[in-house]
Amino acid sequence: MPNAVPALRSVAALPQPYLLFLGDTTEAGYAKTAFGLRDWAGGRCVGEYACADATVTTGLPFLSPAQARLAGARAMVIGVANPGGRIPAAWLPLLVEALQAGLDLIGGMHARLSAIESLRNVALAHGRRLIDVREPPADLPVASGRKRSGRRLLTVGTDCALGKKYTALALAREFRARGIDADFRASGQTGILIAGQGIPMDAVVADFAAGAAETLSPDADPAHWDLIEGQGSLSHPAYAGVSLALLHGSQPDVVVVCHEYGRERVLGHPDYLLPSLEETIDLVLRLGARTNPAIRCAGISLNTGKLEEAEALRAMGEIAARLGLPAADPIRGGDAFARLVDSCLA
Amino acid sequence: MPNAVPALRSVAALPQPYLLFLGDTTEAGYAKTAFGLRDWAGGRCVGEYACADATVTTGLPFLSPAQARLAGARAMVIGVANPGGRIPAAWLPLLVEALQAGLDLIGGMHARLSAIESLRNVALAHGRRLIDVREPPADLPVASGRKRSGRRLLTVGTDCALGKKYTALALAREFRARGIDADFRASGQTGILIAGQGIPMDAVVADFAAGAAETLSPDADPAHWDLIEGQGSLSHPAYAGVSLALLHGSQPDVVVVCHEYGRERVLGHPDYLLPSLEETIDLVLRLGARTNPAIRCAGISLNTGKLEEAEALRAMGEIAARLGLPAADPIRGGDAFARLVDSCLA
Repeated sequence: MPNAVPALRSVAALPQPYLLFLGDTTEAGYAKTAFGLRDWAGGRCVGEYACADATVTTGLPFLSPAQARLAGARAMVIGVANPGGRIPAAWLPLLVEALQAGLDLIGGMHARLSAIESLRNVALAHGRRLIDVREPPADLPVASGRKRSGRRLLTVGTDCALGKKYTALALAREFRARGIDADFRASGQTGILIAGQGIPMDAVVADFAAGAAETLSPDADPAHWDLIEGQGSLSHPAYAGVSLALLHGSQPDVVVVCHEYGRERVLGHPDYLLPSLEETIDLVLRLGARTNPAIRCAGISLNTGKLEEAEALRAMGEIAARLGLPAADPIRGGDAFARLVDSCLA
Repeated sequence: MPNAVPALRSVAALPQPYLLFLGDTTEAGYAKTAFGLRDWAGGRCVGEYACADATVTTGLPFLSPAQARLAGARAMVIGVANPGGRIPAAWLPLLVEALQAGLDLIGGMHARLSAIESLRNVALAHGRRLIDVREPPADLPVASGRKRSGRRLLTVGTDCALGKKYTALALAREFRARGIDADFRASGQTGILIAGQGIPMDAVVADFAAGAAETLSPDADPAHWDLIEGQGSLSHPAYAGVSLALLHGSQPDVVVVCHEYGRERVLGHPDYLLPSLEETIDLVLRLGARTNPAIRCAGISLNTGKLEEAEALRAMGEIAARLGLPAADPIRGGDAFARLVDSCLA
């Protein structure tokens, strides 16, 4: 996705293109960030780099930091997350090499690059930056509630980790394919690395969370669309506050409700049943109307990753018929997804 | 109110009794914190201290820090907030004097005591603490959603700044007067100074806000009541996320809806009409049922401070009749307040 994002107040753009760093990773599951960047920001990734014992690859060319710099790279991104979110000592010489080659370092892990003294010293000596995307901007305002110009879509969900980021990215790509001026607005660390900018909503102080959402999708041309990555769920026992602040601050004209077919309980909170799609739509529209009375639900983004094609089509058809709204899996695309996009733009 | 609060996980108790510091204040309106402490924690305030040119007084004995220390004081509290929340240079010699006399310093202003180098040095030299109550605990968990033992009441509101803290304090006092084991749980800086402990919800990182609320009212004896100070409003364009996190994490059995009679628009957001009491009750019960399906509304706490007594009684009667719930002004007390407390305990 080409990056044609206007400058955001308080939201610095990340240095790009990227060199993707895979560490010493041998488990593909730990390299989701690198794969996400390859899939959604491939045009802004010049290659990959890794320790000698890494076995995971994105399929991009293997380049040393110096080669990557010559190919135009401006930063090396830590594209893997090992359990615990720590930065192993074995990575440090390669991180130092990148700084010495003229690349900034970007991390999205819990452990902050800027907390490692040796990296700080090398970065200082070479005039390079250590950028932790989980660090929110320092000057976020309290939300004003003022209506902004331009159009906005927010992906919301019945739970965490079921496709809100992917849906917003897929919708942004399809909007642009139809010639519409549209930007993906990232609210979590992987999304921020893909978009090159954004605000990590989960790290913002609670009083400024709705203000952060306002900052994330500023005034725009009346025909412009922001496709905003949702977080959590209004029914989540831990994260509903973040979801509500994001909903109020985003002032969406349109929401798309994301759900994983067959998921019945909140991830990590098995005592909590997932709300129904009907209940989720009703709650989102009721609460969202507070800052945008014209809010509407355009349809359902259904994660059917665990189903066969025929089952997936049947599931989408059944939900679409029940709700009277389009239901599509953005990964499968097809006519159903086209109808969902039509409904967003209606 | 005597402090019989059991130790809270992660929530340190403040050193008490207090000496109240009034700075160089000549406007009573700036000394709300000192007056609140006198009114609600008078038994834990040994006296007041101020610059020579201050004219505001709480009526408590004027004591030097050394005299206060002899009278049992363990900390001097900054009881005034001047516009901008700064600490003027004229206060510094008196703050230093308190540290030298063996008192800790406690502040609730935006400006942090610990950011002032001269105070840090004196505190270090004398083994004293600089305590900023707007600093949340460092080890707050993500909310679990697990049902906790004991009973809980949360004050909620149609807006900010209309009596949620005062209502929770008045209910805690009345519960105790009736022989019920009850604690006020503070979620804002003035409440924290009054209770001697608590968590400043407005300063917690969004992902941990519901977890902070769970920490604030831990498991307790089945007959014990926590009376939890509410924040913001579920309909507030900037703070609804904080309110929802506090509602979900508090898991209240009972809510009391606080409203200022005659207020029609959100404070500081004049484009936003206040929600009706009916709408507020409906929304609170619907959202609160997610973590406590047995939640109920016991009645309305009506701030009638701008009305004459006869008007106030008529307003309370009218609202009580309309909603079929008790409506009372805790400041006026009387039969109406007794009925509200009866309803909370029903």
